[in-house]
Amino acid sequence: MRLLSNELQDHIGETVHLEGWLHKKRLLGGLTFINLRDRKGIVQAVIDDKAEADKLKGMQIGTVMVIDGKVVSEPRAPGGAELHDAKLEIMVPVEFEPPIEIDKPLSHKPENLDTLFEHRAIGLRNLDEAKVFLIRSNLLRLIRQFLYEHDFVEIQTPKLVANAAEGGAEVFKLDYFGKPASLAQSPQLYKQVMVGVFERVFEIGPAFRAEPSATTRHVSEVTMLDIEMAFINSHEDVLNMVQDMLYYTVTKIWEQYSSELKQLRAPEPVLKPQFPRYSMKQIHEMYQAANKVDMSGEIDLTPDEERWICEYAKEHDGCEAVFATDLPKPKMKFYHMSKDDDAALSADLLFRGLELATVPQREHRYDKLIDQMKASGLKPDDESYRFYLQAFKHGLPPHGGCGFGIDRLVEKTIGLGNIKEAILFPRDINRLTP
Amino acid sequence: MRLLSNELQDHIGETVHLEGWLHKKRLLGGLTFINLRDRKGIVQAVIDDKAEADKLKGMQIGTVMVIDGKVVSEPRAPGGAELHDAKLEIMVPVEFEPPIEIDKPLSHKPENLDTLFEHRAIGLRNLDEAKVFLIRSNLLRLIRQFLYEHDFVEIQTPKLVANAAEGGAEVFKLDYFGKPASLAQSPQLYKQVMVGVFERVFEIGPAFRAEPSATTRHVSEVTMLDIEMAFINSHEDVLNMVQDMLYYTVTKIWEQYSSELKQLRAPEPVLKPQFPRYSMKQIHEMYQAANKVDMSGEIDLTPDEERWICEYAKEHDGCEAVFATDLPKPKMKFYHMSKDDDAALSADLLFRGLELATVPQREHRYDKLIDQMKASGLKPDDESYRFYLQAFKHGLPPHGGCGFGIDRLVEKTIGLGNIKEAILFPRDINRLTP
Repeated sequence: MRLLSNELQDHIGETVHLEGWLHKKRLLGGLTFINLRDRKGIVQAVIDDKAEADKLKGMQIGTVMVIDGKVVSEPRAPGGAELHDAKLEIMVPVEFEPPIEIDKPLSHKPENLDTLFEHRAIGLRNLDEAKVFLIRSNLLRLIRQFLYEHDFVEIQTPKLVANAAEGGAEVFKLDYFGKPASLAQSPQLYKQVMVGVFERVFEIGPAFRAEPSATTRHVSEVTMLDIEMAFINSHEDVLNMVQDMLYYTVTKIWEQYSSELKQLRAPEPVLKPQFPRYSMKQIHEMYQAANKVDMSGEIDLTPDEERWICEYAKEHDGCEAVFATDLPKPKMKFYHMSKDDDAALSADLLFRGLELATVPQREHRYDKLIDQMKASGLKPDDESYRFYLQAFKHGLPPHGGCGFGIDRLVEKTIGLGNIKEAILFPRDINRLTP
Repeated sequence: MRLLSNELQDHIGETVHLEGWLHKKRLLGGLTFINLRDRKGIVQAVIDDKAEADKLKGMQIGTVMVIDGKVVSEPRAPGGAELHDAKLEIMVPVEFEPPIEIDKPLSHKPENLDTLFEHRAIGLRNLDEAKVFLIRSNLLRLIRQFLYEHDFVEIQTPKLVANAAEGGAEVFKLDYFGKPASLAQSPQLYKQVMVGVFERVFEIGPAFRAEPSATTRHVSEVTMLDIEMAFINSHEDVLNMVQDMLYYTVTKIWEQYSSELKQLRAPEPVLKPQFPRYSMKQIHEMYQAANKVDMSGEIDLTPDEERWICEYAKEHDGCEAVFATDLPKPKMKFYHMSKDDDAALSADLLFRGLELATVPQREHRYDKLIDQMKASGLKPDDESYRFYLQAFKHGLPPHGGCGFGIDRLVEKTIGLGNIKEAILFPRDINRLTP
């Protein structure tokens, strides 16, 4: 019966059976010390028998093996115990030296990122690297948990679409059995249609943007959480739902995975249940006053303002998540609801200096929506909008939602420096492999 | 405070506030009866006040409205209660007649499917239609629950790949910033690499196949559950995990959603915790004996054999899920493990006459894998296989898994006649919209 590394301390004095990968090997005072890695972590084993130690001759990191041994309490070992009198059996011999070191703490210097991604299949075996994606998986689990509890239904909408021109980003085009098609840059139109069915829907899936920029923020394939909820009383209802979800998720991940987060040196979150809200105009003014910079020409927040307002709110409001409300009209999309002549009923959710989501109320009135489409230069009678407009024509209630960047959430929760480090196999203008 | 339709019976005698869509309207003996739809179902309201009834003049199905009224017990009404003395308020007027009827039970005659999909945005407002996707969402919730409990980590792998030629199906090609790229037809290579990190991984996401066939089985975008698990003792471990997951999921959905499933006239499942296993050869022989048909030329199971063996197992083994084991060599892919000269260590999971998954053990030995790639006509030194082979070169333990068709599971759990009915917005050779 196989024991996992994290169960060791419950079996002190027993002889146990472990299986895993050779993760480290060193000689010390005539003894061979090895670290065995399995899905739960590391076990240290001491090999004193020469015949056993000889089995490791020529065996490299990654060798798959069995260790049987006696569990001995050892406060200095990972997990507080180690194996003595270890007997080895090689399951899968590995004779090649690993292309990169995997036994050191996470250190993603920007200049090393390319090497990191080139050898991703092996680099992910680094315990810290794996923790990033354990946290990611559990952030998604917590998000789903929150949304199920709030009566949301999960949907899957098509990624192959006739026309993906709803958002602004560049789209990937392809040939679909002789017809032109695009890859969906978001489930925007589909999820709005679906509030006509379930009122509250969400989707977690890939979204595709042909981003021609090579920066720490741009990738061409992202994982998006798309949320949409109907029968809202006001835009506030949407802001509160997204706020509560982020608060729940970040708080819970720190309850459940604090030791992993600490090992990754993730910054402890500074959050209040109610996130501070500042209008875009206020932020420009506050930033201008604090930094003696003229912001009068700016419509959108600059990256520096996004960092600054989160720092400001952390210090003054005790919360490093902030809503920048009243997004100015030039940022408004045709499916957003207008607030007044200057602003949309829309807010950016900023967390630790980065925009995680834009959270608008939608224009649900059929006639008004058509006017806004036309004003945006779109053709409402284009065949690809027919199903979308049909939902409005036959009654959609007031609703709102957001597209929430999962990769960005992982990046900022852990405190990584680049969105690509939060993605298993990232894609950008220069990278389509591995 | 808004009440939902399913909460009505707990408020008999109270005056309550409801919001939803006008779903049906009829006049009977001078009274107006309306059905209001919300995300939980239907509420019947009786309007006796003429001024209130007049508010509905010209208002069509889909009109978004508020009803305030007194809850009265009424065994003949949906939910055992209805609203009296109803006061109405129109939130979003709808003046257009619906393009299709949405107030009748599900009846998907093959000849009506195209109309159904053309008006999908409205047709999904049919209560039965919505139930299909409520069941779908919860099947996925249960699958995730099972896999989390069994220590699987959820991953997201790229859908934009340099080379998707691992499986056999036709792939969609596109231009990726001037380089040729494909849409992933499965996460096969990525998930195998990831067992080197987490041992047990799964992914639920879209997969793309440029299927040039127009049948009830073929769509070009599917939702796949991909599972992979390492440190198995034998192929049996993998079969058991997939079997247990299907048993858990189908059993639980019937515990939690039996009334919805009954309303959809879904057949009650006939399952045993241990699914019967017959070799492919046995099935050919049994079918031949029972049906007096010569099967000696057949390698794969015919669709009729798939139906027959599930019926047979239902009758003889009390289980309509079956493993067809020892898949013949011509069906074996390069990453499957060979059993002997004739068969692979691989089985098809059949449920109610349809293959849900192929469940093989993988070839984990580096040298053997390279031989099998070459024998399949692939070039192991192709740049796009480098990351994959790297994982084996540096040690992968014995492992296996499957690609499991979620759309097929939904179809068969509910007893639909066509995979497209289990997909919100299906894609096939003739359909790219809505």
